[in-house]
Amino acid sequence: MKILAIDTSNHPLSIAITDDDQLIATTTLNLTKNHSIYVMPTIEKLVAIAGWQPADLDRIVVAKGPGSYTGVRIAVTTAKTLADTLQIDLVGVSSLKVIGAHVAQLQAGRPTIVIFNARRNNVFAAGYQAQQGQMNEWLAQQHMSFEDLLQLVEERQEAVSMVGEFDAQFDEQVAQSPAHSLITRLPANYAIPSAYDLAILGRSAQPVTQLDEFVPDYLRITEAEANWQKKHPGELKQSYVREV
Amino acid sequence: MKILAIDTSNHPLSIAITDDDQLIATTTLNLTKNHSIYVMPTIEKLVAIAGWQPADLDRIVVAKGPGSYTGVRIAVTTAKTLADTLQIDLVGVSSLKVIGAHVAQLQAGRPTIVIFNARRNNVFAAGYQAQQGQMNEWLAQQHMSFEDLLQLVEERQEAVSMVGEFDAQFDEQVAQSPAHSLITRLPANYAIPSAYDLAILGRSAQPVTQLDEFVPDYLRITEAEANWQKKHPGELKQSYVREV
Repeated sequence: MKILAIDTSNHPLSIAITDDDQLIATTTLNLTKNHSIYVMPTIEKLVAIAGWQPADLDRIVVAKGPGSYTGVRIAVTTAKTLADTLQIDLVGVSSLKVIGAHVAQLQAGRPTIVIFNARRNNVFAAGYQAQQGQMNEWLAQQHMSFEDLLQLVEERQEAVSMVGEFDAQFDEQVAQSPAHSLITRLPANYAIPSAYDLAILGRSAQPVTQLDEFVPDYLRITEAEANWQKKHPGELKQSYVREV
Repeated sequence: MKILAIDTSNHPLSIAITDDDQLIATTTLNLTKNHSIYVMPTIEKLVAIAGWQPADLDRIVVAKGPGSYTGVRIAVTTAKTLADTLQIDLVGVSSLKVIGAHVAQLQAGRPTIVIFNARRNNVFAAGYQAQQGQMNEWLAQQHMSFEDLLQLVEERQEAVSMVGEFDAQFDEQVAQSPAHSLITRLPANYAIPSAYDLAILGRSAQPVTQLDEFVPDYLRITEAEANWQKKHPGELKQSYVREV
């Protein structure tokens, strides 16, 4: 099965093509957020270097968020367009899981918490735990304050690894938290998503059945939506983006 | 510190540029062994996409073997030429360690054995173990039969992870070995070297002092050398490649 995997949900852009679980080619850029400029040329280069035609692809796997609104939309839109054009399967995988599963699989039952910086001291967070060959959710993915995340670790009193987009403020909060002795923060090289891992996660997953209904997991509303809801109380938009 | 990392020692080619421990851009190709064709264009593309000039680089880190003779020579020759031309530091890192350190760091003291297929049922092997923040050698890198490696694991009676270039014969030998219950084989996505990991390993290492004396770690002699030695017993060539 020839797979194209795309992750532009955060600062890094990662594209990979694989044949089943074998990597063919991958590029990861972490220098700019101009994902819209780089995503298609990078896909084209990798497919060309493999000597493939786009029509050779069997499946698209996309990191469907959470992350930056624009980033997530670029990957999901590109993936949907390609899957529709080529009439092939589309699979969506949590952007947090791409990083979390890679680490958790090597951690023998120890939970791995992945965080993306959601600004204003908030994070997108999820926890993964490998148990009996299964990858379980130790913490369902959610938008929460970093403070609440630390409190949750303290309450569960379990030693965890933490990986992702740390800033100096997060580091300070960990240091001052009663949970700090439970937390091992992993170095930066484990925090960069690999689209190769994404392809492997999506290889045996169930594809999307209704392509046009496939939407990203934003996990929170945009500022524009929040403002709109303030001005129009009671009129809850379930799927603002789709409707627009 | 702006780093260029190069690994072409085996089937995959991996190139990365980093700024200290932050990834800027990386490409890994795993489709052909035409490393001589892809190595310089890939370096040029990544440096260009970062908006850097070659003269901006501060350090070259190269995977110095073991691996394929030709592959190792391509990376080392490219790295030496660039370091000499740009008058910057060169660091060599074991090709086995690039893969092994990434896994072992997440394995909480459990040893990780990396193998490269050296043909004729032989492997290049090394073992790494993270202990108290240090990366120790559980098994010094060497050229050995796969049988001897399995026997060594059996003798040490320690549960290990094994990652690398497995073929069907290796899998069968593991299954039939008394050591099989001690060995967990990791999936293919942990067996592909990441030049980003290579850059991180080389970042704080001591650079080569005599650039022209820097040679790869082949860990065995070539067939041509073996034949030559058979015909000329007693005339041991210590550094065949350098001399030629």
